[in-house]
Amino acid sequence: MVLPNGGRDRQASATGVLLAELVAALGGELRGADVRRVWRLAPLVEADPDSLSFVAHPRYLAQLQASRAGVVIVAPTLADAALQRPDPPPGGWAAWVVADPYATFAALTRWWRAHVQPRPAPVGVHPTAWVAPGARVHPTARLGPFAVVEDGAVVEEGAELGAHVVVQVRAHVGAGTRLGPHVVLGYDCRIGARGLVHGGTVIGADGFGFAPVPLPDGEGKRWEKIEQLGAVRIGDDVEIGANCCIDRGALGDTVLEDGVKLDNLIQIGHNVHVGRHTAMAGCVGIAGSARIGAFCTLGGGAIVLGHLELADHVHISAASVVMRSILQPGHYSGIFPIDDNRAWEKNAATLRQLHALRERLKALERRTTP
Amino acid sequence: MVLPNGGRDRQASATGVLLAELVAALGGELRGADVRRVWRLAPLVEADPDSLSFVAHPRYLAQLQASRAGVVIVAPTLADAALQRPDPPPGGWAAWVVADPYATFAALTRWWRAHVQPRPAPVGVHPTAWVAPGARVHPTARLGPFAVVEDGAVVEEGAELGAHVVVQVRAHVGAGTRLGPHVVLGYDCRIGARGLVHGGTVIGADGFGFAPVPLPDGEGKRWEKIEQLGAVRIGDDVEIGANCCIDRGALGDTVLEDGVKLDNLIQIGHNVHVGRHTAMAGCVGIAGSARIGAFCTLGGGAIVLGHLELADHVHISAASVVMRSILQPGHYSGIFPIDDNRAWEKNAATLRQLHALRERLKALERRTTP
Amino acid sequence: MVLPNGGRDRQASATGVLLAELVAALGGELRGADVRRVWRLAPLVEADPDSLSFVAHPRYLAQLQASRAGVVIVAPTLADAALQRPDPPPGGWAAWVVADPYATFAALTRWWRAHVQPRPAPVGVHPTAWVAPGARVHPTARLGPFAVVEDGAVVEEGAELGAHVVVQVRAHVGAGTRLGPHVVLGYDCRIGARGLVHGGTVIGADGFGFAPVPLPDGEGKRWEKIEQLGAVRIGDDVEIGANCCIDRGALGDTVLEDGVKLDNLIQIGHNVHVGRHTAMAGCVGIAGSARIGAFCTLGGGAIVLGHLELADHVHISAASVVMRSILQPGHYSGIFPIDDNRAWEKNAATLRQLHALRERLKALERRTTP
Repeated sequence: MVLPNGGRDRQASATGVLLAELVAALGGELRGADVRRVWRLAPLVEADPDSLSFVAHPRYLAQLQASRAGVVIVAPTLADAALQRPDPPPGGWAAWVVADPYATFAALTRWWRAHVQPRPAPVGVHPTAWVAPGARVHPTARLGPFAVVEDGAVVEEGAELGAHVVVQVRAHVGAGTRLGPHVVLGYDCRIGARGLVHGGTVIGADGFGFAPVPLPDGEGKRWEKIEQLGAVRIGDDVEIGANCCIDRGALGDTVLEDGVKLDNLIQIGHNVHVGRHTAMAGCVGIAGSARIGAFCTLGGGAIVLGHLELADHVHISAASVVMRSILQPGHYSGIFPIDDNRAWEKNAATLRQLHALRERLKALERRTTP
Repeated sequence: MVLPNGGRDRQASATGVLLAELVAALGGELRGADVRRVWRLAPLVEADPDSLSFVAHPRYLAQLQASRAGVVIVAPTLADAALQRPDPPPGGWAAWVVADPYATFAALTRWWRAHVQPRPAPVGVHPTAWVAPGARVHPTARLGPFAVVEDGAVVEEGAELGAHVVVQVRAHVGAGTRLGPHVVLGYDCRIGARGLVHGGTVIGADGFGFAPVPLPDGEGKRWEKIEQLGAVRIGDDVEIGANCCIDRGALGDTVLEDGVKLDNLIQIGHNVHVGRHTAMAGCVGIAGSARIGAFCTLGGGAIVLGHLELADHVHISAASVVMRSILQPGHYSGIFPIDDNRAWEKNAATLRQLHALRERLKALERRTTP
Repeated sequence: MVLPNGGRDRQASATGVLLAELVAALGGELRGADVRRVWRLAPLVEADPDSLSFVAHPRYLAQLQASRAGVVIVAPTLADAALQRPDPPPGGWAAWVVADPYATFAALTRWWRAHVQPRPAPVGVHPTAWVAPGARVHPTARLGPFAVVEDGAVVEEGAELGAHVVVQVRAHVGAGTRLGPHVVLGYDCRIGARGLVHGGTVIGADGFGFAPVPLPDGEGKRWEKIEQLGAVRIGDDVEIGANCCIDRGALGDTVLEDGVKLDNLIQIGHNVHVGRHTAMAGCVGIAGSARIGAFCTLGGGAIVLGHLELADHVHISAASVVMRSILQPGHYSGIFPIDDNRAWEKNAATLRQLHALRERLKALERRTTP
């Protein structure tokens, strides 16, 4: 049986958090009831009068109106709605009015992490970690159990390597960067400062490069390996999810610029270049030598074929396949619409005759034109 | 060169298995030849007279009729077909008649695993494993080489952690649950009893949550991290494949209910809720806050977008993209039909004019209506 | 900030490489300037007069003409273009003329890896590795930190296990095969000679097999596990990317024939059979019991449903879904064309009425036929 939500207690502050202290730290203005303390953060629908919640968008107005959250972070336009919720507790409802509630909520989660619910982290260098004599690990870096730092590698100030992390020969981990359990940073690969890589991600495996060579029997071709002589270079403030693969380049390097954010299970082929502050949702695949601009977003499961270029500010919907370069900013999609199975079967079968249908329509148009 | 099938011998019982013992344990009725022993389990097409096989569905009638399996597990309707196969061995063919051959076959594989072909498993706590002083590991739990159990974590009776498993701070592994090699169970995450998680799966990495914040240069937005303060809660009898990712929730928890079965390389976003006995095939992606009902199935590579809801008993075909909530049970699909490349090119090009074609058809209809 | 390209220096030969030595080793003919040494390998667009580059296809003619590479590997038809590039250095440009520039380039990268830029590798058996007393590890095999070789496993001559590799009970690693960090080779699984498996790949997790069994409450079915009693057998010269999953068979084995090449994040279900020299790009999923021929290619993200058959020499485009067996060689596709979001929305909505449109067109044709 799934156990009851331990999170409610886990996330709670034992003594409550002074609301005035939060507002002083994060900005904005308190309105309504004189709430002194909040005990936990909660989504609108789960919140109780001891909770602090937020509403990021006017489309959640109905959820706001039904919410029992003692305090709600809102934009000015929703302040009255937050204050005038029905069935108020003694003293009434409260609103914390800010210009950008979502950004304030983000900052609040970081405050909460720092002050109420600290993240567990390794302390110092675990006695079971293995550091090669020729590696350079800063005295403030923290290494979990069985972490490995190979010869010539550098781990900068305040960096953190989780259990079983492998930092290979001559790799470089920037200051304050955290590598989750089982992450591999391949030889000669570099990640900048304040990065975060989640468990199981492999940075610097070989790119997929082979030259076809005819077999003597004439039946087909075998694949001769092209050694991947490049590496991976990652900028500052980059976050990469769990079980991703970022391949090393064939000759030059694969590059992720500053501020790139990747979700889980993402494949970045060799020599791909991803511009700054571009974000990709889970299960995206970028084939080799593609060049993705800055400030792009790619929805979950999207695929970009090799050697293509995406301009800055291009947004690709989930599960869409980019088959040609996109040089204009904008929002692009290519998803087969889901339907009940019978309807889909009929439409999909007809789709295979679509070009013929068009020809028939053309013929009909010619025939019926006076 | 791929070596010859060692499986044939590997899976074989040295002395043979008494068929009567199997039938006594698993139910049903023996008919036909008086077969005393079987030596191995085999699919219909590979079976020989020493083998026990099964036929799960009448559509495999032709395979059944051609099979050389000494004994075949069949439903009553196929018993005669199993017995009357051509070219019988001395004594004839045998059938083991049961109500549900596939379920009996499943039970048989479990019996075989228990009695003939035991799964290798760690014995006790491997001397290289590292258990924090504040962890609680049941004396019957087994830990492989270099397994890690961190402070405050609990490993219940009979649980098994493979090589290099990491059970982080305050995480909880239920009784009899097995975590394969390199699995990570993140801090505060819980899995119930009798679970099975295959190698490389990461439970409890951060969900993908960021608030966009304008850059001072006005060129675009950077992403401010939303700390993920929730965890993952997994029920009993859950199986999760290899190299999956189950992210921790942002505020509340990500939940997999009892009996959920996930194949490999599946992405479950933060705050997703999966109902009991729902099964997902490989490479599925479920975006954040989606709510999947009970008794659903999702085919391989299917994608469900964020914040959507699937009712109970919804079945999604492989590679289909769920873009809207589905509130009625049923079978849904959205797959572009594959075709030879030339035909596809023509149809795909025409598809980009589909709306225009519809308008032309409408115009034509108006024009030709008397 | 992403650091400047360290690769340029990293890949460079300190003393330069004698061009005549390369040509002697790899074949072909030098034309043009009497270049004695090259210092690095580089793509056409990044190359300088100290660099050796290549042009694999006439479509890169413009890049060739603009390239500053001192020497370019070209086919005979492009030799003049390589020699007559504008703005030559003193002495002119040089061309290395070969029959198949891409294959020569592949061989060159291997030469470079062997002579100029060696790959870091473990030396001997790392003191932290754990080898079971009943395992057999060849004296020339190399094991990284915390590698595990379990009872009855065999590691052949010159094989290399990266950090944290797990070779389970009775598994077999062929001569000269390399397993990257965190690779798992499951019990009873075998990989042949000269293989390469990249980090985090799991070979031999259970296939996804369950029999549905009605629940007593009548609300639906639970899933009873089918124990996976087979294994995985992999031939010689196979390369598998990072974070892939190759599941063990249910009764028989899952098989990858000689020379198969798999990119990253690929899912191979139980009892799949992949023919020799077939290559698959990243994120491909092959469902259980599919039989893929020899000399096939599957583009990134392609999906093959279970129990299907692909003939030899079948080529599937990226992101295409194979829903029926393909018994003729050829090139097959099924990709929804990407478009700007508004156009896609209109076309996708119309697609849901496609069958109805066809019926309307038919009616119109009947009505307007004289």
